[in-house]
Amino acid sequence: MNNLWGGPGSILGLVLRMTQFTFAAGSIASMATTTNFFNLTAFCYLIASMGLQIIWSFLLALMDLFSLVRNQTLLNPVLVSLFVVGDWVTATLSLAAASASAGITVLYFHDLGHCHFGEECQKYQISVALAFLSWFSTSISSLVMFWLLAAR
Amino acid sequence: MNNLWGGPGSILGLVLRMTQFTFAAGSIASMATTTNFFNLTAFCYLIASMGLQIIWSFLLALMDLFSLVRNQTLLNPVLVSLFVVGDWVTATLSLAAASASAGITVLYFHDLGHCHFGEECQKYQISVALAFLSWFSTSISSLVMFWLLAAR
Repeated sequence: MNNLWGGPGSILGLVLRMTQFTFAAGSIASMATTTNFFNLTAFCYLIASMGLQIIWSFLLALMDLFSLVRNQTLLNPVLVSLFVVGDWVTATLSLAAASASAGITVLYFHDLGHCHFGEECQKYQISVALAFLSWFSTSISSLVMFWLLAAR
Repeated sequence: MNNLWGGPGSILGLVLRMTQFTFAAGSIASMATTTNFFNLTAFCYLIASMGLQIIWSFLLALMDLFSLVRNQTLLNPVLVSLFVVGDWVTATLSLAAASASAGITVLYFHDLGHCHFGEECQKYQISVALAFLSWFSTSISSLVMFWLLAAR
């Protein structure tokens, strides 16, 4: 099993994990500082999904760091299978949460012509944008992991 | 390049394409027969995305059928790469559209406590459910195609 650009235990893999973590944390921070998010199921789901993303990316970043420092490989087929499943689950949940929240945001800003939550409206938009960026980064990781598993 | 369960030119591949096509057509039929869908961006996006899904799945189903009747293989690397890209694009768009519409549906049914579109409310729910089923079927096809490409 040869490592790939962005695979487990590589510097680019670590950068991808840190990007996912940062965007997901930014998304939660932006959403959780609004006062009305708990009234909307999609926004609560976004926070839950980004929370899962943070935990997953943090654990994987730690493993990448451990692998880089100790110069040990993480290319065990069982380990890569685990990464594939985890990445696919988090990527799917992130895209679903970001899209559901984007649907609500577009409803308020475009379809209804106004957003009646005042200053919080911009925070919703920022949170959704960061969630999409986090999903994009996770989808790259998951494609790399799946390729590694299939091409071993 | 060995064919897989559900790969191009196999009977199960054809069944998967027909499932995607049927669910996507059902989703459009259920949504397009409501009178208010065009007021909501997410619902219009669902129709556009399911339309793309129908065209893609129909073309691929025709190719599978052609391959089965003529007993010719479709396992050309260039062709499989094209299938991978098309499947990933349609799967991502389908999940995003289904999730955005689900976000709106949950907003009306759960968060606001009622749906003021009368009999059409059930049609929205059916359309979203069928869109998720179509996405699930497409995601299986895309995983099979990606595996075939990586493992060649």
